[in-house]
Amino acid sequence: MEYRITDKIKNLEANAIREIFGLLKAPGMISFAGGFPAAEALPVAEVEKIASELLSGEDTLAILQYGGTEGYGPLINSALKYAARFGIKETSENNALIISGGQQGIDLTFKAFLNKGDRVLVEDPTYLACLHILKTYEGEPIGVKADSDGVNIEDLEEKIKRFNPKIVYLIPDFSNPTGKSLSLEKRKAAAALAEKYNVIVLEDNPYGELRYSGERLPAIKAFDNAGRVIYVSSFSKTIAPGLRTGIAVADEYLIKKLTICKQAVDVHTPTLSQAIVDRYLRKGLLQPHLDEIIPLYRTKKEAMTAAIARCMPEEIKFTNPDGGLFIWGEFSVPFDTGAAFKEAAETTRAAYVPGKPFFADGLRSDALRFNFSNSTLAQIEEGVKRLADFFKSKLAKKY
Amino acid sequence: MEYRITDKIKNLEANAIREIFGLLKAPGMISFAGGFPAAEALPVAEVEKIASELLSGEDTLAILQYGGTEGYGPLINSALKYAARFGIKETSENNALIISGGQQGIDLTFKAFLNKGDRVLVEDPTYLACLHILKTYEGEPIGVKADSDGVNIEDLEEKIKRFNPKIVYLIPDFSNPTGKSLSLEKRKAAAALAEKYNVIVLEDNPYGELRYSGERLPAIKAFDNAGRVIYVSSFSKTIAPGLRTGIAVADEYLIKKLTICKQAVDVHTPTLSQAIVDRYLRKGLLQPHLDEIIPLYRTKKEAMTAAIARCMPEEIKFTNPDGGLFIWGEFSVPFDTGAAFKEAAETTRAAYVPGKPFFADGLRSDALRFNFSNSTLAQIEEGVKRLADFFKSKLAKKY
Repeated sequence: MEYRITDKIKNLEANAIREIFGLLKAPGMISFAGGFPAAEALPVAEVEKIASELLSGEDTLAILQYGGTEGYGPLINSALKYAARFGIKETSENNALIISGGQQGIDLTFKAFLNKGDRVLVEDPTYLACLHILKTYEGEPIGVKADSDGVNIEDLEEKIKRFNPKIVYLIPDFSNPTGKSLSLEKRKAAAALAEKYNVIVLEDNPYGELRYSGERLPAIKAFDNAGRVIYVSSFSKTIAPGLRTGIAVADEYLIKKLTICKQAVDVHTPTLSQAIVDRYLRKGLLQPHLDEIIPLYRTKKEAMTAAIARCMPEEIKFTNPDGGLFIWGEFSVPFDTGAAFKEAAETTRAAYVPGKPFFADGLRSDALRFNFSNSTLAQIEEGVKRLADFFKSKLAKKY
Repeated sequence: MEYRITDKIKNLEANAIREIFGLLKAPGMISFAGGFPAAEALPVAEVEKIASELLSGEDTLAILQYGGTEGYGPLINSALKYAARFGIKETSENNALIISGGQQGIDLTFKAFLNKGDRVLVEDPTYLACLHILKTYEGEPIGVKADSDGVNIEDLEEKIKRFNPKIVYLIPDFSNPTGKSLSLEKRKAAAALAEKYNVIVLEDNPYGELRYSGERLPAIKAFDNAGRVIYVSSFSKTIAPGLRTGIAVADEYLIKKLTICKQAVDVHTPTLSQAIVDRYLRKGLLQPHLDEIIPLYRTKKEAMTAAIARCMPEEIKFTNPDGGLFIWGEFSVPFDTGAAFKEAAETTRAAYVPGKPFFADGLRSDALRFNFSNSTLAQIEEGVKRLADFFKSKLAKKY
């Protein structure tokens, strides 16, 4: 007899990226899939020292015992200070919730807001996990056009009017997957639209600290006068993803409701993770760490863009982001990156992520995402060349 | 303008216990509310040593980097060995999922199985968080009668036939809130009903290791020949709740679906927490630790039952459980424990949890739950006496 699980879960495939991880384990594989921080960018020694201090210190019982759903008190405060780096003005702990990684911020927001069939506008393409989570709530994603400086505001307003969405999901800094950033004017405009139409802007910013060129911009939340922006950030890309610790900043009422949702799903984020992040921030270790890893990532990004410029066929146009972990390529001729993925990985021993699952309608197959953070310079050089040769040979056969 | 959050979340109060935590912070308060392990039962030194070993060892990068949703490989295996302590025969890692605390097992199961309006049968009264989570999925709880040896099997079968539930939620060992355990015969019967009616039995067992008298019984899952039982356990009560680490054991297909759900909600459980639990188990520290804390808890439980026998009015009948953390009291005369709670806490400086939120229909107000694990023997003595005097004075006025 079949299990009576819901259709929405029965039909839900594992997130596309995590599914292809298996293939990527082949020996010699150069993987530009995934979105892992570089192993050499993880502050191992500092985390070890902090964990040892914490567990031999005075707050040990608080770390091992149950904690409040809102989060570990000291971290709530240091995380708000962290958010202030992006112009976020909230300073009350009633405006913050510690979450189990940035992605939980998306899940909790959807849980609080969405009924079956409710619409969510997303910049197209967008973070595929957002679309994956949306399926678990039977929400409907609607793609919004994007310019080189992020979501197209005219299209955004038109689609807000047309589809009456509850949520607009945006990644303002170095978006996953395109690497694009939202301009200052568009941040203001997005906050204004949220107020005008009573829409929540869910601002997801895991990459904002990883800027390799240009000037830092304030968060959309910094322009939110009506309490319509939920700001979510994560320490996965700046400290360590394995700690699964992030923060949500929002209006007090919304934080209360997100907290009630979080209480149901996991009671609270592990306190040891929270306390490690807290102490890391309090010790002032973040900026020196960023000062170390940004040049590392910048060099990798530049190596990849240089290799792309040198090797890739002109039928693929790539972004050249100011930060983050990803470069996005779109074919100007018909090409199915999903269909080609397996052959590419097997014959060239290099891998990308097919673009399809990043699109709201899941239909465009002519794009791909490269991650540069988790490969060496030599791997970047070699992997881009291998894939470039592969694409060239495929394109040649079609003409 | 109001936020457009869903009605189900708008109307959802914070979990009753966590809401009254505020009141309990008053100086001198003796709290039998909550369900915390004793502070002195937390293995601080061992966890510190293990964390330090882990973070200076060879697996450090795996601990700080992203991990698989299924869980940290070594823990999956040692958690399965742990489950075998309760007669669980599954040994393949495809049958296990590491979860962020036992409660996440309830959330993920509901996410996978429930559509709006779907029914879940629960032993009445039951774990209030289960009812709380159920509200976030708009499921409908149906209470099943309980005998002194757990859920009444005749009523269970009748209600399965009548209400066609997707899930039956049971806590076989030392239930929260009553402390009751399910007899061996009833465990077999529950597994058989699950098979007969294609119902999932969600077996939640956080307390099974905390047995103070009687013989250990196999899990319901041990009698599951049809893959209809999802076994969930937690290391919160045996190692440390702050680590938020538990395990689900189920049929491979179900584990896959729960994993897809977990991928959406929090990607994976923090690896440091998982690795600490894993090494704790591998070092064989669990049994010696249990050998230490069980006498501690047994003494506390016996102190509480003795104080109850000595002081409490005969109009309240209390359970005398063989294990776990809770004692349950029911008035044999009309008495509203919820209405009396605030006055009791304020005038006696002792606190219990009102029974109402533990009932499927949320209507019965004549019961209460005591926790004994997190108080000293002197506090148990004094708190029971104060509350007994309070109840006596209230009862006297009514006659």
